Amino acid sequence: MNTTSDRLLLVADLSGTFLFGLEGARIAITHDLDLLGILVLAFSTALAGGVIRDVLIGDVPPASLRDWRYPATAFLAGTIVFFLHRAVQALPETPLIALDAAGLSLFAVAGTQKAMDFEMNPFIAVLLGTVTGVGGGTIRDIFLAQVPAVLRTDIYATAALFGSIVMIVACRLKLPSTASALLGGTSCFLLRLLAFWQHWNLPKAP
Amino acid sequence: MNTTSDRLLLVADLSGTFLFGLEGARIAITHDLDLLGILVLAFSTALAGGVIRDVLIGDVPPASLRDWRYPATAFLAGTIVFFLHRAVQALPETPLIALDAAGLSLFAVAGTQKAMDFEMNPFIAVLLGTVTGVGGGTIRDIFLAQVPAVLRTDIYATAALFGSIVMIVACRLKLPSTASALLGGTSCFLLRLLAFWQHWNLPKAP
Amino acid sequence: MNTTSDRLLLVADLSGTFLFGLEGARIAITHDLDLLGILVLAFSTALAGGVIRDVLIGDVPPASLRDWRYPATAFLAGTIVFFLHRAVQALPETPLIALDAAGLSLFAVAGTQKAMDFEMNPFIAVLLGTVTGVGGGTIRDIFLAQVPAVLRTDIYATAALFGSIVMIVACRLKLPSTASALLGGTSCFLLRLLAFWQHWNLPKAP
Repeated sequence: MNTTSDRLLLVADLSGTFLFGLEGARIAITHDLDLLGILVLAFSTALAGGVIRDVLIGDVPPASLRDWRYPATAFLAGTIVFFLHRAVQALPETPLIALDAAGLSLFAVAGTQKAMDFEMNPFIAVLLGTVTGVGGGTIRDIFLAQVPAVLRTDIYATAALFGSIVMIVACRLKLPSTASALLGGTSCFLLRLLAFWQHWNLPKAP
Repeated sequence: MNTTSDRLLLVADLSGTFLFGLEGARIAITHDLDLLGILVLAFSTALAGGVIRDVLIGDVPPASLRDWRYPATAFLAGTIVFFLHRAVQALPETPLIALDAAGLSLFAVAGTQKAMDFEMNPFIAVLLGTVTGVGGGTIRDIFLAQVPAVLRTDIYATAALFGSIVMIVACRLKLPSTASALLGGTSCFLLRLLAFWQHWNLPKAP
Repeated sequence: MNTTSDRLLLVADLSGTFLFGLEGARIAITHDLDLLGILVLAFSTALAGGVIRDVLIGDVPPASLRDWRYPATAFLAGTIVFFLHRAVQALPETPLIALDAAGLSLFAVAGTQKAMDFEMNPFIAVLLGTVTGVGGGTIRDIFLAQVPAVLRTDIYATAALFGSIVMIVACRLKLPSTASALLGGTSCFLLRLLAFWQHWNLPKAP
């Protein structure tokens, strides 16, 4: 096993966890939750997508409960936002959207890869990759008693879906797996940013 | 193994998936969700009950994620409703209720059968049969940030519960499994329609 | 295996199930749910925390679906509240809070113990113990389309977390497991009551 590539993957995965954890905590504060609520939302936003994926493919305990660094990273992000929330709230929107898009791409790619490693059908792997990307935000919105944002607005889950499809098509065309992952992640990232910039939305029923 | 009976079961199961998928998509449109939201609600309404059952009995990946035809059927139903939603919304209520009752009966019976195949206690098999029938609608309502309809109105989960009990009693009385399933499904279907027609409700606390 | 200790554990576990079942049913009635809704909320409040823990550690079917006495106890509690709800609603608040704190302590300790039996990392065991204690109430609040109470108010999940940490530290200090469990449970119980009495709350973001 290539330890350098493994270490890179771990760093990427923990970075995504950290980014989504920051975002979950930020939203918890705008909903007036207390410290525990902030930590729970940081955890859920960062890790629930992967937990759902792992439960569905039968890889339990989920990866993020076998390695303490995942919850620790999410809680660290929550704690930072708790203490520095004025600074965090004052951040301009564009870099936050870009960071979030990076987290989404990373999780979509990681979820797709894991589903393929568990020999799921490609069609199902695309669904599981998307769930990995958007599951955390969905659970967070359910905790906040809101209709999940991904269901009503914006090109968001669609970007994860698109990146996941690109990655699987690239694998099928016999590209090396790192190249496929990069291609899928970049597709997701660019579509998300382009859609945000151009105010693209999915159609509603005619 | 009797392939004709297996094929019949598959056709019945996919029909239930299609019916519940139509209904989930229809409700998504009345809540102003976009195309992705419509597909997610079609999927959840059709398949979440079975997914929860399979996760609880330990049959993972869930059946509907091992066979691409299940999600494909749900998404097909969602797509049809997306394009034909005016026609779908104009349908009279009674046949929709009857189709929904058919889907409910089918899922309750299939869930009960699977729980018995996994040698769950009969009491638990009844619970899991009911969850298979009403789980999808419950998850759909949670996505819509509403108290699940099954918790507050109507004889709906109760019909699934009743059908599942009838089926298990019939099995215990040594009836053949096909007859037991038919008896259970018919009981659920008739109770549901009778209750709708007669405006029966469960009692509230005195 | 020590059958007396096992029987004690079972009695304690079923008592917790009964207490949380009473509470779930009581809340269901204040939300105007029907008989089925009352039973579902009794079941969820009492057993969902343990079910989530068992699914996450991979012990499926969950303990409460392998032994019919767990759901039966929850449904019994729901039925009692249904018929005696005037009497139940008239109970003074303090003993209810104390009973609830007892249920919370019991579940937190049982969840922590089970996570340790499955050789989870101590940090993760604390999380799973807390989930066992507060998961049921969280699911109940989601069913009621409300932000889970544990996320916004009070020292509640924090008490479970504290009891779980005390228990694990005691185990690490080589105290016998019964003593560790008692110490953890008592810590949770006392912190919960003290916080209720003194109106302690967790801090919100400064």
